[in-house]
Amino acid sequence: QRARDYGIRIGVMAPGKWNAITDVPGVKVGHTTIVRGDSIRTGVTAVLPYDGNIFQQKVPAAVFTGNGFGKLAGTTQVQELGNLETPIVLTNTLGVATAMNAVIEYTLKQPGNENVQSVNAVVGETNDGYLNDIRGQHVTKNDVLAAIQQANSGAVKEGCVGAGTGTVCFGFKGGIGTASRALPVNLGGYTVGVLVQSNFGGVLQIDGVPVGEEWGKFAFSNQLLNNVDGSCMIVVATNAPLDARNLQRLAKRAFMGLAKTGGIASNGSGDYVIAFSTADSLRIPHNYKQPLQQVSLLQNEETSPLFMAAIEATEEAIINSLFTATNTTGHKGHTVEALPIDKVIALFKKYNRLQK
Amino acid sequence: QRARDYGIRIGVMAPGKWNAITDVPGVKVGHTTIVRGDSIRTGVTAVLPYDGNIFQQKVPAAVFTGNGFGKLAGTTQVQELGNLETPIVLTNTLGVATAMNAVIEYTLKQPGNENVQSVNAVVGETNDGYLNDIRGQHVTKNDVLAAIQQANSGAVKEGCVGAGTGTVCFGFKGGIGTASRALPVNLGGYTVGVLVQSNFGGVLQIDGVPVGEEWGKFAFSNQLLNNVDGSCMIVVATNAPLDARNLQRLAKRAFMGLAKTGGIASNGSGDYVIAFSTADSLRIPHNYKQPLQQVSLLQNEETSPLFMAAIEATEEAIINSLFTATNTTGHKGHTVEALPIDKVIALFKKYNRLQK
Amino acid sequence: QRARDYGIRIGVMAPGKWNAITDVPGVKVGHTTIVRGDSIRTGVTAVLPYDGNIFQQKVPAAVFTGNGFGKLAGTTQVQELGNLETPIVLTNTLGVATAMNAVIEYTLKQPGNENVQSVNAVVGETNDGYLNDIRGQHVTKNDVLAAIQQANSGAVKEGCVGAGTGTVCFGFKGGIGTASRALPVNLGGYTVGVLVQSNFGGVLQIDGVPVGEEWGKFAFSNQLLNNVDGSCMIVVATNAPLDARNLQRLAKRAFMGLAKTGGIASNGSGDYVIAFSTADSLRIPHNYKQPLQQVSLLQNEETSPLFMAAIEATEEAIINSLFTATNTTGHKGHTVEALPIDKVIALFKKYNRLQK
Amino acid sequence: QRARDYGIRIGVMAPGKWNAITDVPGVKVGHTTIVRGDSIRTGVTAVLPYDGNIFQQKVPAAVFTGNGFGKLAGTTQVQELGNLETPIVLTNTLGVATAMNAVIEYTLKQPGNENVQSVNAVVGETNDGYLNDIRGQHVTKNDVLAAIQQANSGAVKEGCVGAGTGTVCFGFKGGIGTASRALPVNLGGYTVGVLVQSNFGGVLQIDGVPVGEEWGKFAFSNQLLNNVDGSCMIVVATNAPLDARNLQRLAKRAFMGLAKTGGIASNGSGDYVIAFSTADSLRIPHNYKQPLQQVSLLQNEETSPLFMAAIEATEEAIINSLFTATNTTGHKGHTVEALPIDKVIALFKKYNRLQK
Repeated sequence: QRARDYGIRIGVMAPGKWNAITDVPGVKVGHTTIVRGDSIRTGVTAVLPYDGNIFQQKVPAAVFTGNGFGKLAGTTQVQELGNLETPIVLTNTLGVATAMNAVIEYTLKQPGNENVQSVNAVVGETNDGYLNDIRGQHVTKNDVLAAIQQANSGAVKEGCVGAGTGTVCFGFKGGIGTASRALPVNLGGYTVGVLVQSNFGGVLQIDGVPVGEEWGKFAFSNQLLNNVDGSCMIVVATNAPLDARNLQRLAKRAFMGLAKTGGIASNGSGDYVIAFSTADSLRIPHNYKQPLQQVSLLQNEETSPLFMAAIEATEEAIINSLFTATNTTGHKGHTVEALPIDKVIALFKKYNRLQK
Repeated sequence: QRARDYGIRIGVMAPGKWNAITDVPGVKVGHTTIVRGDSIRTGVTAVLPYDGNIFQQKVPAAVFTGNGFGKLAGTTQVQELGNLETPIVLTNTLGVATAMNAVIEYTLKQPGNENVQSVNAVVGETNDGYLNDIRGQHVTKNDVLAAIQQANSGAVKEGCVGAGTGTVCFGFKGGIGTASRALPVNLGGYTVGVLVQSNFGGVLQIDGVPVGEEWGKFAFSNQLLNNVDGSCMIVVATNAPLDARNLQRLAKRAFMGLAKTGGIASNGSGDYVIAFSTADSLRIPHNYKQPLQQVSLLQNEETSPLFMAAIEATEEAIINSLFTATNTTGHKGHTVEALPIDKVIALFKKYNRLQK
Repeated sequence: QRARDYGIRIGVMAPGKWNAITDVPGVKVGHTTIVRGDSIRTGVTAVLPYDGNIFQQKVPAAVFTGNGFGKLAGTTQVQELGNLETPIVLTNTLGVATAMNAVIEYTLKQPGNENVQSVNAVVGETNDGYLNDIRGQHVTKNDVLAAIQQANSGAVKEGCVGAGTGTVCFGFKGGIGTASRALPVNLGGYTVGVLVQSNFGGVLQIDGVPVGEEWGKFAFSNQLLNNVDGSCMIVVATNAPLDARNLQRLAKRAFMGLAKTGGIASNGSGDYVIAFSTADSLRIPHNYKQPLQQVSLLQNEETSPLFMAAIEATEEAIINSLFTATNTTGHKGHTVEALPIDKVIALFKKYNRLQK
Repeated sequence: QRARDYGIRIGVMAPGKWNAITDVPGVKVGHTTIVRGDSIRTGVTAVLPYDGNIFQQKVPAAVFTGNGFGKLAGTTQVQELGNLETPIVLTNTLGVATAMNAVIEYTLKQPGNENVQSVNAVVGETNDGYLNDIRGQHVTKNDVLAAIQQANSGAVKEGCVGAGTGTVCFGFKGGIGTASRALPVNLGGYTVGVLVQSNFGGVLQIDGVPVGEEWGKFAFSNQLLNNVDGSCMIVVATNAPLDARNLQRLAKRAFMGLAKTGGIASNGSGDYVIAFSTADSLRIPHNYKQPLQQVSLLQNEETSPLFMAAIEATEEAIINSLFTATNTTGHKGHTVEALPIDKVIALFKKYNRLQK
């Protein structure tokens, strides 16, 4: 069950149907979960902006770096050209290169791409080395291709799946989480969806309730036990017609959502946001016929509700990743417990914060 | 009275003696409050990194732009050279140029600066045009010089003073606020102090308590009444020996503190953070004698506690600006009410969140 | 006479009719030249993207910082919103604030701007303190307003005029220079125009001819005599329909043009480029009626010829500033000689580089 | 033979002993040249900042993006932390991921790195797909490891070697080039060395001589034949004690050197500079013992001669890559001819520009 199922309602805007990144029409998510033996707890998550040849019809995109201690591949080209030409793949830190090769292979082999000689694979990561034998580099090309091929619309699996299989967040088991916001029609009616791979620390706050403080479990509370480092990869999708400049602004707001969960973007964090727009009219053809492209763009002044939506959806996506994760034992016998939901609910009752 | 006086304890770290930016040794703050007639509600706030000739002994500094709809002067030089050579002055949007001239005059006239021909005045602003006749440009050079000259250490006046005289925050009267965090010795023992000029919107949260949501008073809740735009200028001081690169990272964390109050960095916001270090060994001499400078810098890995301190102090500084502001009537008869403290306290009681 | 009049042909593209920034339809340039007594050698140059209320119909724009030791005002807002809402004004370093106040006054007073409360004045500068009593701050608001009001299309005065009255470039008298390139129709037929305020050092090269080296007059050739610091403000206009992202890329290429003259962007240089597009369809209305704006944008792939044009036009604009400047004596009796054209021509003959 | 051997003397500063990046003490370069059958013309070039465990003792570093249409891996972490922890590897566009895996393997296996779980592999590329069957992805991990292991100090092989085996520059055969500048003692006595992988277009200028223009062979001169796109990877090394901020400024100047060869950083170019300092006192220990690091840094004001050195060395390194490359036939029978040196020399004579 997700946070909202317990009566925890983050923010003031309404979620979309699935409360997931897939509420943005066309967006698909696929996971490959890799759990083998005692030590392998890792995986791959792929986000596809739409079903089709992304290389031939690129989408506007932008990257915001919250804290750059990470290996997100493909950033400079996304920034320079303002577009994304591959699925976004998330995996573990030492799996990035293999995932890139998979994304390149996927792209080179798609019909229509027979002459493509340059692919900007976008692959993000967080470090699951506490639960996973990360040095073993167990993610294969096929694992990545499988995540892309199995990508689906509709409900998204969360928690200990895909790239979230082995992650740790606020000292609890982290993982994949997602959420969305659907703007009312008078604010444009657009949807903003977020998916996170949570693997970071700080002082956990759930919808403002000071969970980490209450339990004395937070960054620096005990320097022997707590490791504040980690990372958070955040993917933001919207169908609002935003160009790359405004997508970067939107991406920055997702980082504000991370802040609201108590994350501190510690020195050792790789906190990145990649945002893209699925708006049809903004697709960028790889082989264009006309030097000019007619596009319909949202005015700057119309972006603020989208900003708020990105903040709320990111906050909830992170919390969802904690709610849906489960106790995990892995590499070297390390065990990370899931967020104890009953105790969280007890806190919410103590603080009178559960919604009916 | 400030938030903490009511039993509201933001974060897990302890504040410094004054719970103010002036807890960073040497830092001084001065205000010129300009309230005249029915329409003039504005002012100037100056932050001095230390008492002395800042131009001759510059301090390491960096700027982070949260949302750049603002007129902060001096950013590119601070970023390029990594230092600050003047007091930081805050005022209203249309007063920036006059304040720059004042800072230039102040600098040119300081003993030892007789041959100076170039001054990078750092002047920030927010727009107080709802309560203040901003088009009248009532801030004078002397007002700015007075703020600099009257700057003091110790307790800092907050609320409707200086550059905060006419600002509005979350639909309530905003203003100047400050707070600090003192790290325990085993985390370095450094102090981080923050001062804000609050003038922005969103969905107010106080230490996680959903005030804005509870009262139905937030961004877009009523599109006729609410104006989410505005700005927040944030000044961060520390005595930790951080170079410009790590100061910029610190500055970014202050923006995370803003997020925790419910700010959304709307399209029309000028949300900037300027951070500096007062560490003696890092002073940059204008006329240096040796091509090499010996400095003692904090390792990257040691910055995380400072990041957390900046987040907490910024959150509390913003809340303090609301707690200390008072009802204000100004330009065109506009009235903005102060945050109703008793109602806030009632909410904290409802949510069982007051600390003894 | 300008470089081209002597048979010096920089680059491979053809200039526009005036070989000036004003070849971009609508762009106007105005100068106020301030020469008084023995010590005042300064001025103001204004560039207007078009004739009309720029605040109400903003133009797409972007800034590139080559080296940020300078005081260019307005950068962060141009970058965040991707637009320019005032004329661009150039003056001396200590005149920036006064010029900002003039630009603000100009904007507030324009019909239709009666309710404007926020103006992002874009004012650049270089330091003319060697020839001008810069500490005297002799530029007035009226000087700035006059430059804006007298702005004209057609031929542009160059050399010791406006903001170039007191500047020094490669040890010779610098000043204002301009040039343009008109793309052939099969490359889009657009025009790129550049205007510079030249005030920097390095090793002068004119169309590849090693003038500085030949004369032993260059950066560090004699450390007592040469001061490599200074600055170059560069304004790039185009009628190509580029959005802010591609305008920033265009701006960066102007910096490459500076490099080709032998500039080194020394530590003390304020080398900035501001680029804007005059394309009608890209105007950004201050009060828009529809949340979506229909625009027609040039594809990324079509930008390369514009990049080349910006490089060539910048190189030639800088050289023109040197060719048209004249011997100047000013502050403290300092004299800076103009580039000795006959000696340059002699060098071009020696190197067989004059075009017929 | 290199440009200087023919009497072409670029710039005014003196090169180091080898006129190579290896003039910076400790720097090593290794190549793996992969020429097989008719279609495989590619390779790997590795630059090592020093001989030792770079992960355990990182070096200060920074990246400048001239034009970001490229796949340089590792940029965000270099920028965030200001350091480099692996060798820099250059290869072809579709070989980046494989090279990253090799760099990771190299690092994980180095003695002392047994517990390392996160490696920021820095791998750059240009696209050699015209001469090389790039889609075949013929670069293997072992090829990369071999380049690292064979790295040497002293003279550096240039032209069609390593990552330059299949590149094209200004329509001629490009490749690897290198050069250096040794500052005189009164300017600090430091060395700046540059290595390039040249694969870009524009209007070739050699030491200011308009080669491309003269031969009518330049960007857009013939739209059917010329492809202006491509890329240039530039590595800058120095023993000057520069921190990451000043290294980024140094990196930007290398881009100015590229401009002087006639490069235009076209839309399709991946033009990146990575700069690092080998200064002993600036090594960043992976496991540090003290929270403070004592370092000795060059003052900002002392950087300008280094900037000039980086410009000159980059210009010469690119020209050297052209002088040393040889006619190459590869993929699909494509042939690219080397720069015809005799014709270049003839031009230099025509223009009276050869030095004795």
